[in-house]
Amino acid sequence: MTGQLPQTERSDARDNRVRILDAARAVFGEEGLSAPMREVARQASVGPATLYRHFPTKHALIVETFAEQRRACRSAVRDALADPDPWHGFRSLVERICELHAHSRGFADAFITAFPEAMDFAADREQALRAVGELARRTQMTGQLRPDFVVDDLILMLMAHRGLHETPRATRVTASRRFAAYLIEAFRAAPETAAPTPPLPPAVRWPTRHPGARPPQG
Amino acid sequence: MTGQLPQTERSDARDNRVRILDAARAVFGEEGLSAPMREVARQASVGPATLYRHFPTKHALIVETFAEQRRACRSAVRDALADPDPWHGFRSLVERICELHAHSRGFADAFITAFPEAMDFAADREQALRAVGELARRTQMTGQLRPDFVVDDLILMLMAHRGLHETPRATRVTASRRFAAYLIEAFRAAPETAAPTPPLPPAVRWPTRHPGARPPQG
Repeated sequence: MTGQLPQTERSDARDNRVRILDAARAVFGEEGLSAPMREVARQASVGPATLYRHFPTKHALIVETFAEQRRACRSAVRDALADPDPWHGFRSLVERICELHAHSRGFADAFITAFPEAMDFAADREQALRAVGELARRTQMTGQLRPDFVVDDLILMLMAHRGLHETPRATRVTASRRFAAYLIEAFRAAPETAAPTPPLPPAVRWPTRHPGARPPQG
Repeated sequence: MTGQLPQTERSDARDNRVRILDAARAVFGEEGLSAPMREVARQASVGPATLYRHFPTKHALIVETFAEQRRACRSAVRDALADPDPWHGFRSLVERICELHAHSRGFADAFITAFPEAMDFAADREQALRAVGELARRTQMTGQLRPDFVVDDLILMLMAHRGLHETPRATRVTASRRFAAYLIEAFRAAPETAAPTPPLPPAVRWPTRHPGARPPQG
């Protein structure tokens, strides 16, 4: 029996790691990166010592928690740059970035905020914004993107997109899709050179005309 | 001298009331309605007892703090409905609502959230949204507004606008103006019937390509 102990320990450690990462995705996904480490430990049903043995810093935990989103973001950038139709590439990239942000408040935080330790995310962001800039130049030359669009406008809209995290979870993805479609309409060039307008995704129907955001406390 | 005491007391009370309202505008304006009453008392340099003598409930304080914004909102609605050009009225109303929201996070909170006690704000919101609905119908008939625009889309965008409160104070109004102009472009009808596109207000130039939103703690 004693010969099996190390394997059991390894298997326990693996289970703990999986549980911690699942908890981190849920906690940071819903509450953003300001959620404390102890909340992740609580949801994973592990003690703080176990949490810190697996992830000595919050940064280490965040990087691994959002590894999949970071891969998805890099692949969205690659696809967009490789798209033979730059306006289609630009639109798809805006849609995919919004979707990643809608699904996880924590990823949106890491992508957009000046989180001093999240250098990996800063690199992803720079890469994504450079791609948007490159696609914008190409698409402005075809006349389909407004000539006065600048990459800072996409940052502006991603800042605004974070406001949608205050909406109820059930409507968030619908809200984000409608928002992204309106963005693309806003960025589209003026009439004379524009491509035909596609239909918008479904509107969000707010219950009783207010979005039910968190009421203030205190 | 004793004969003057009541007047001094009245004058002190008036000073306190002014100081409390100034503090409330600053605190709720920057932090939103979730800021605690004790923070307002602290900034006004009055004790909690004095604060509660003037404003027995947070609701009473909020209603008086935002009396001016509520008047501005009602007058924006009146002007928009009276505008002989419905598309101009619609655009102006969107711009003025965004501006009110940009200047005060607390007013945006009161306008948009389901704050159970803020019935007065709920009435203003309903009035503003009814006006937007009425103007939308008129403007859709002239062909200048997208036929698939619904009033819920404006709520969506005001939810998103709240995300701009995470941007540094110095850029917030510029950010809000650019956002509102893009909104109007997004809501504008498809090419064949659209009015000419006006130039956008200046873009926000984010320092070092990230907006410097609050880094997470914990």
